[in-house]
Amino acid sequence: MVETPVKFEQISPSEFFYRNRDIAGFSSPARSLYMSIRELVENSLDGAEAGRILPEILVELSQEKASDEEGGVNVFRLRVEDNGIGVPGDKIPLAFATVLYGSKYGYRQSRGTFGLGGTMALLYGQITTNKPATVISSTDGKTIHRYELMIDVVENKPRIISYQELKNPRGWRGTIVNFYLEADYTTSRPKILEYFRNTAIVNPHASITFVDSRGRLYHYPRVVEKVPEPPREAKPHPVGVDVETITRLIASASARSLAAFLQASFQKVGRKTALEVVEMAGLKPDMNVRKLTHEQVTALIDAFKRYGKFRPPDPSPLSPIGAEFLETGIRSLLKPDFIHVVSREPSSYGGHPVVVEAAIAYGGLIEPSETIHLYRFANKIPLLYDERADVSWKVVSEKIDWSNYKVPKIAPLAVFTSICSTKIPYKTVGKEAIADRPEIERELTIALRECARNLKAYLSRIEKREAREKRLGIYAKYLPKIAEFSAATAGLKKPPDVNSLLKKLGVTEEHIEAERAAEA
Amino acid sequence: MVETPVKFEQISPSEFFYRNRDIAGFSSPARSLYMSIRELVENSLDGAEAGRILPEILVELSQEKASDEEGGVNVFRLRVEDNGIGVPGDKIPLAFATVLYGSKYGYRQSRGTFGLGGTMALLYGQITTNKPATVISSTDGKTIHRYELMIDVVENKPRIISYQELKNPRGWRGTIVNFYLEADYTTSRPKILEYFRNTAIVNPHASITFVDSRGRLYHYPRVVEKVPEPPREAKPHPVGVDVETITRLIASASARSLAAFLQASFQKVGRKTALEVVEMAGLKPDMNVRKLTHEQVTALIDAFKRYGKFRPPDPSPLSPIGAEFLETGIRSLLKPDFIHVVSREPSSYGGHPVVVEAAIAYGGLIEPSETIHLYRFANKIPLLYDERADVSWKVVSEKIDWSNYKVPKIAPLAVFTSICSTKIPYKTVGKEAIADRPEIERELTIALRECARNLKAYLSRIEKREAREKRLGIYAKYLPKIAEFSAATAGLKKPPDVNSLLKKLGVTEEHIEAERAAEA
Repeated sequence: MVETPVKFEQISPSEFFYRNRDIAGFSSPARSLYMSIRELVENSLDGAEAGRILPEILVELSQEKASDEEGGVNVFRLRVEDNGIGVPGDKIPLAFATVLYGSKYGYRQSRGTFGLGGTMALLYGQITTNKPATVISSTDGKTIHRYELMIDVVENKPRIISYQELKNPRGWRGTIVNFYLEADYTTSRPKILEYFRNTAIVNPHASITFVDSRGRLYHYPRVVEKVPEPPREAKPHPVGVDVETITRLIASASARSLAAFLQASFQKVGRKTALEVVEMAGLKPDMNVRKLTHEQVTALIDAFKRYGKFRPPDPSPLSPIGAEFLETGIRSLLKPDFIHVVSREPSSYGGHPVVVEAAIAYGGLIEPSETIHLYRFANKIPLLYDERADVSWKVVSEKIDWSNYKVPKIAPLAVFTSICSTKIPYKTVGKEAIADRPEIERELTIALRECARNLKAYLSRIEKREAREKRLGIYAKYLPKIAEFSAATAGLKKPPDVNSLLKKLGVTEEHIEAERAAEA
Repeated sequence: MVETPVKFEQISPSEFFYRNRDIAGFSSPARSLYMSIRELVENSLDGAEAGRILPEILVELSQEKASDEEGGVNVFRLRVEDNGIGVPGDKIPLAFATVLYGSKYGYRQSRGTFGLGGTMALLYGQITTNKPATVISSTDGKTIHRYELMIDVVENKPRIISYQELKNPRGWRGTIVNFYLEADYTTSRPKILEYFRNTAIVNPHASITFVDSRGRLYHYPRVVEKVPEPPREAKPHPVGVDVETITRLIASASARSLAAFLQASFQKVGRKTALEVVEMAGLKPDMNVRKLTHEQVTALIDAFKRYGKFRPPDPSPLSPIGAEFLETGIRSLLKPDFIHVVSREPSSYGGHPVVVEAAIAYGGLIEPSETIHLYRFANKIPLLYDERADVSWKVVSEKIDWSNYKVPKIAPLAVFTSICSTKIPYKTVGKEAIADRPEIERELTIALRECARNLKAYLSRIEKREAREKRLGIYAKYLPKIAEFSAATAGLKKPPDVNSLLKKLGVTEEHIEAERAAEA
């Protein structure tokens, strides 16, 4: 008998994220502060949008304990208050102190994705300061629930330290999260301010106020008084649906025949499409869908992939930024000389609709640089870290040869990409870089090439205008001289009047003045 | 009563990774094939090392189904066989068909980290092909266990399709994993071959054979007949230990007094250190450790951070590559003109020991380039994706000004970094990029600066030699002429013999010849 020197062990999801907090972006005191603010603000924006409420968000950061010593701990208090729909009293402990418990798992666009962010922030706070978090919420404007919570990491369960029901005389509704964490504000401050600024750009209906630990107040006022249409839940699109999804759909289907099941469970599948797909899979439309074998399900998925005639997915679960709004935001931020925005039609990957928007801005306040300024957004969240790992960076740096579009090596060029989807394929749980799914890469490439073609036309016009200006300058300079010379040669006393000719050629007084000045 | 349009839901870890397979690196058919091979090969290497066995690994890839059509599915079969310690029969279903179940959670270096990789590969295969995986293993050389498995994603539980006990007449021991997956070998082939090559470089004791779907055989033979010392489990180091860890240590402690607890539960804490730390925390050495309040535990951790006099952590749980071996590997790969390797002393972050090794190679087969060739290793795994998101890239591109070290803009420069730790702070579950923990960043910077200083000395020597060669060339050219001229001026028939003077200056026959040739 050979001994096996290996222990096997099952760990809980909270244990997993506790041990691997780097993968959720909580890697240093600076980045963890940024992540905490981000996760809570995004929960607040989602919470307001879900109730069609104009978001009013207040973020307060204060320093609790400063360390003079090298390696000592700097403890901050972070408080985020919103006016969203709130979290029901009985759900608060699970929602804030359990990993992989959340409300963001539906088939529609939301900022949150993993059911993880808020809890990770609180978990990080608990690990670094050993203090409970306070969560206060009201959903009905009547009762206010107030919890002090810690997380039982081993069991992935909340530990309720205290609970109170409070009176709500002023009918307040919303959520307040208040907790302590080890943080480094000095280092993360630029990123945090950039995060607020860019979030405000793509969420003009939100009013965001940030009071920092130095007592400074940053206010990003509401610019638009209209709540964006909240994304609706929808059925999955057949393209790219996998075995697991289809097995679940079959399990919960009320339709019995295969054809009826396809029509009822997927978007963009009518009677005709259903029959064609079934035939392509070598199956029969009236087969009992619950009795499909493994091989038949596999054949069905293969037919989905090969069919090629589905209409694009329903974009109603999405709420993209919108070309008009993107343009307004960019203009106010960068005051560019040129801007072109492209909104692609909805496409899909893995059964999820995707809308890609892109823009190129040139000149104005954009700093000329060898590196392109890339602004990335995903479901209206600005992405600020891990730029080089993102699909947008790949497209901008590898898929587009900027010299083909007359862009000089050092240029005042800014590129904006926005990806909205019911499911953003993030590479990291920290939601900073998007994976290069071929469908998304393709959409981005098409959108940015269209922008680049327009930029090229603009740069060509500039080039032509400059060439024309140069040519007119030459006319302005030499025509009078030629006239004088010809007159002298012909023995005329007065040279012919070239002004009408110059005017005809488009030479203005300014050109003539400029040339005279250059001469002198 | 206001309705709450939000559903709350708890999901299992397998459901989480099923929905977010991009974060584990399974983002495209190409990358998923690469990831599957990688995860299984690393399990095999760990499985052999745990038993002090010289690894013998056979990887077979065959194409099961080719699609002629656009968008059709290419199905491959992947089979990985090793001669490791095997997985006990009753543990096989959980180990291969449950997420977050594994043997890699101990406090020692291992390639696997997340208890996730092997199961993710099988999960990906199941999602894309709907076929069960086969796992065959023997731990004792007597009984062979053979399972067909699928994963119940919703429940995070194995589904056993079939089980057999097989005879083992030849005393085979090891593990075979065989499964089907949608894959793209054409695109991933270069990365896969690079992975095998680099793995072989840092695991010279392994024999690895890869037979690909085109029928090609790649064999990476064993170069060293010695099993590396397997890393041992150790106690945590006090620096950077967090509240959660210390709470668990207290819960499982047998010592009752605080001072005794510190000595028994941490490495590098003797009686004297324990007393000093306790005093720094404002506590008493004979306090009952189980009765410490939250605030006292926090004070203790703060004292750990401020103490500053701990000896570096015990490196015995680590098994770094070793300077000598790294040098041999690099020489055989790149045949550089210059190489310098630095092995840093063990340091720590978050209670985990870290050993950083780094090397710079210059010239030889290294392609001159504006971009530095960076080879990254973590716990003897080559990292091939997401280079720009890695701490090594940050150090190489931001922390070191190569022009200070006389490195020209376009240079044949290769940089190697190896990080070994009981816990590598990966940014992604796909284990491709390491987070920029300040302690690791610092170690890398120091190691690479030391390499760079040596490179500078080498490049200076080259520069000096070139300047000297040039100077000697000038002597060789002009001294004879000056002699002739002086002789002629002085009316001498024969110029004085300058050869002895030239020789004294270090000018050789070659210099003279070269100058004559240049003249002609």
